[in-house]
Amino acid sequence: MIKNITNVRGFRCWGAHTGVKSLRRDLAIIFSEVPASAAAVFTQNQVVAEPVKVCRENIKNGMAQAIVVNAGNANACTGEQGYEGALAMVRATAESLEIDEDMVLVSSTGVIGEPFPTEEIVNGIRVSAPKVSNRSSAGSFAANAILTTDTFAKEGFIEFSVGGREVNMAGIAKGSGMIHPNMATMLAFIVTDIDIEPGLLQKAVREAVDDTFNMITVDGDSSTNDMVAVLANGMAENERLKMDDSKDYNVFRNRLRQMMEHLSRLIVSDGEGSSKFIEYRVVNGPEKSVCRKIARSISSSNLVKTAMFGRDPNWGRIVSAAGNAGVAFDYTAVDLYLGNEKERVKVLEKGKPVKYDRNFMKKLLRESHISVKLDMCNGEAEATAWGSDLTTDYVLFNSVYTT
Amino acid sequence: MIKNITNVRGFRCWGAHTGVKSLRRDLAIIFSEVPASAAAVFTQNQVVAEPVKVCRENIKNGMAQAIVVNAGNANACTGEQGYEGALAMVRATAESLEIDEDMVLVSSTGVIGEPFPTEEIVNGIRVSAPKVSNRSSAGSFAANAILTTDTFAKEGFIEFSVGGREVNMAGIAKGSGMIHPNMATMLAFIVTDIDIEPGLLQKAVREAVDDTFNMITVDGDSSTNDMVAVLANGMAENERLKMDDSKDYNVFRNRLRQMMEHLSRLIVSDGEGSSKFIEYRVVNGPEKSVCRKIARSISSSNLVKTAMFGRDPNWGRIVSAAGNAGVAFDYTAVDLYLGNEKERVKVLEKGKPVKYDRNFMKKLLRESHISVKLDMCNGEAEATAWGSDLTTDYVLFNSVYTT
Repeated sequence: MIKNITNVRGFRCWGAHTGVKSLRRDLAIIFSEVPASAAAVFTQNQVVAEPVKVCRENIKNGMAQAIVVNAGNANACTGEQGYEGALAMVRATAESLEIDEDMVLVSSTGVIGEPFPTEEIVNGIRVSAPKVSNRSSAGSFAANAILTTDTFAKEGFIEFSVGGREVNMAGIAKGSGMIHPNMATMLAFIVTDIDIEPGLLQKAVREAVDDTFNMITVDGDSSTNDMVAVLANGMAENERLKMDDSKDYNVFRNRLRQMMEHLSRLIVSDGEGSSKFIEYRVVNGPEKSVCRKIARSISSSNLVKTAMFGRDPNWGRIVSAAGNAGVAFDYTAVDLYLGNEKERVKVLEKGKPVKYDRNFMKKLLRESHISVKLDMCNGEAEATAWGSDLTTDYVLFNSVYTT
Repeated sequence: MIKNITNVRGFRCWGAHTGVKSLRRDLAIIFSEVPASAAAVFTQNQVVAEPVKVCRENIKNGMAQAIVVNAGNANACTGEQGYEGALAMVRATAESLEIDEDMVLVSSTGVIGEPFPTEEIVNGIRVSAPKVSNRSSAGSFAANAILTTDTFAKEGFIEFSVGGREVNMAGIAKGSGMIHPNMATMLAFIVTDIDIEPGLLQKAVREAVDDTFNMITVDGDSSTNDMVAVLANGMAENERLKMDDSKDYNVFRNRLRQMMEHLSRLIVSDGEGSSKFIEYRVVNGPEKSVCRKIARSISSSNLVKTAMFGRDPNWGRIVSAAGNAGVAFDYTAVDLYLGNEKERVKVLEKGKPVKYDRNFMKKLLRESHISVKLDMCNGEAEATAWGSDLTTDYVLFNSVYTT
């Protein structure tokens, strides 16, 4: 049996079918028995879904005790009616779980611009909230209930030791815009029983998101609903984390990053429209921000993505995309490697093409997991991005979505 | 007979076959009998082709008398050997035309990273330069010799009056990254017989490029070789344009913009991989820069582009892409119209969906020329971007390019 949210001390959850989606579960509730430190980051899109507006208010106290998520309707571009709907979700959750309204985070995913089915969802909440459970199946219900066009549920669980105490962490996520980008919301909810101050948790979340969820690209756009939220309820009873230079905090931060990378990879992997998972590592750069921008620029280039689909070791496109990252980039200093998880071949050395066996390269690029490594030879910073290829299926799926 | 470069006073040109490309003309030379004011803008890519480096030097004096362009090899990522090759092209052109080396602009387009065939091209220049001619056919030769995978030559000619003098302006261009983006260089060369100070010409060119070439998007990347150059040789004998607030300058500026828009539209139109030409107008915005960013963000969104391919009036993707432009954007204030050149239908009013006849909309979107108009209802500025759709053919063409 796999471990999930229900194996983190004090957390219970549920996933139900309210009817907004015709067949699948479409409502998830995560509940902590005690108030938890809470941190979240939201979409950078200027067009923001109604639940995101509500969350931004409710997260201000740095605490939360429940997360409620509906799937099938994004509650975006829905105006006053939608905003009232998001508030109604919060109210129903708070009442049913007997907690304060400002202890509830709310999230939605699905189609944009349809009227929000408040009544259906609120009824669903009233029926489901009392069912929150720590049975393992409840964790699976929740993980499945936040999906839209994802083809599998994305879950993670890790345990580690902090100050001699065993700490548990679990997360669920839903997919990005690979296949049906109008529903392209990227959501992730992570719970842990570690004890940490809210401000420090926010810092850890911000940094880990920058290294993980912000480095997966599928179509370059962030949706109106994107959200990552983390609750830490302290039930591991470790000495509360307060300082960002402590060894314990460092352990936690790395584990949080590990969880987010795991969920990010699962998101990228889930695409009928994509045929390859590609890891882009930019190493030995002058600054992390530079490496990050270059890795993202390469991974989001349509030309690089179509080349990957075509198994084409087209280093010219990679170098040109790096040059479009908006940061200083000296291609005459770089080494470039292409290959897969197991083997890589150097194709550029100090910016000059290296002769390699083209048939061997074709064989490497036939794998479903591709590795691109750009060595800037100009420092010690590095960053990694993950992406899919751009396929004819991507275009087909996306061109027939609403009509 | 169409008018072209050869109908601008004092300009002669030629287009020849050097052998770098197997069958088509691959070398163009444009020559002004007298020194001309010269202005140019170059790619923003950090990876810059060798001829661009040479041009940046040679344009510093604000004057030029010849432009030499080779097609088939981009002379990018070619290092010292390529830089020497670009210098050799300049030297051969200057010697053959008996002008100073710093009066020559040089440009290349084609494959990246192949050794530069200096000898072949220099020989071609020595044979071709003496042939520069003002016969109309020479203009066509030049327009064709700068092409790579373009399916047609892109030319324009206009005449207008400045201070009672007749002024001529002609331009040629080659395509962008719609089909074979590794050769995605966007080049445009415009000549005119107007008399204008170099500094003022540079200002006019910069502004017109921002409104035109910088607003056509096909894959969002700028190539290593992109370049727009304008020569103005003064043979119209108008009173020299010196002030940016003069009526005459205003006439010239508008005409230059008109020429560049014409060439930009031709570039967008040329794509086997694209099935539609789409105009994105953002009107009544607070500032031009805001409108420009939003128009570009929408036109370069893969999701919008696939929706256009699928004839899908997916306003959610358009609004979401606008929200990703990196500028303040209040969707609850905007009206959105979709349609074609002749008819448009309002789909959003003040951010709220408007009921419309879906069958009629499908009919409108079946056209090859699509119009998207976003009214910000928040000022008087506006900007227009042009783009293609994202098709399965685009992916196919680009995935089988070099291999």
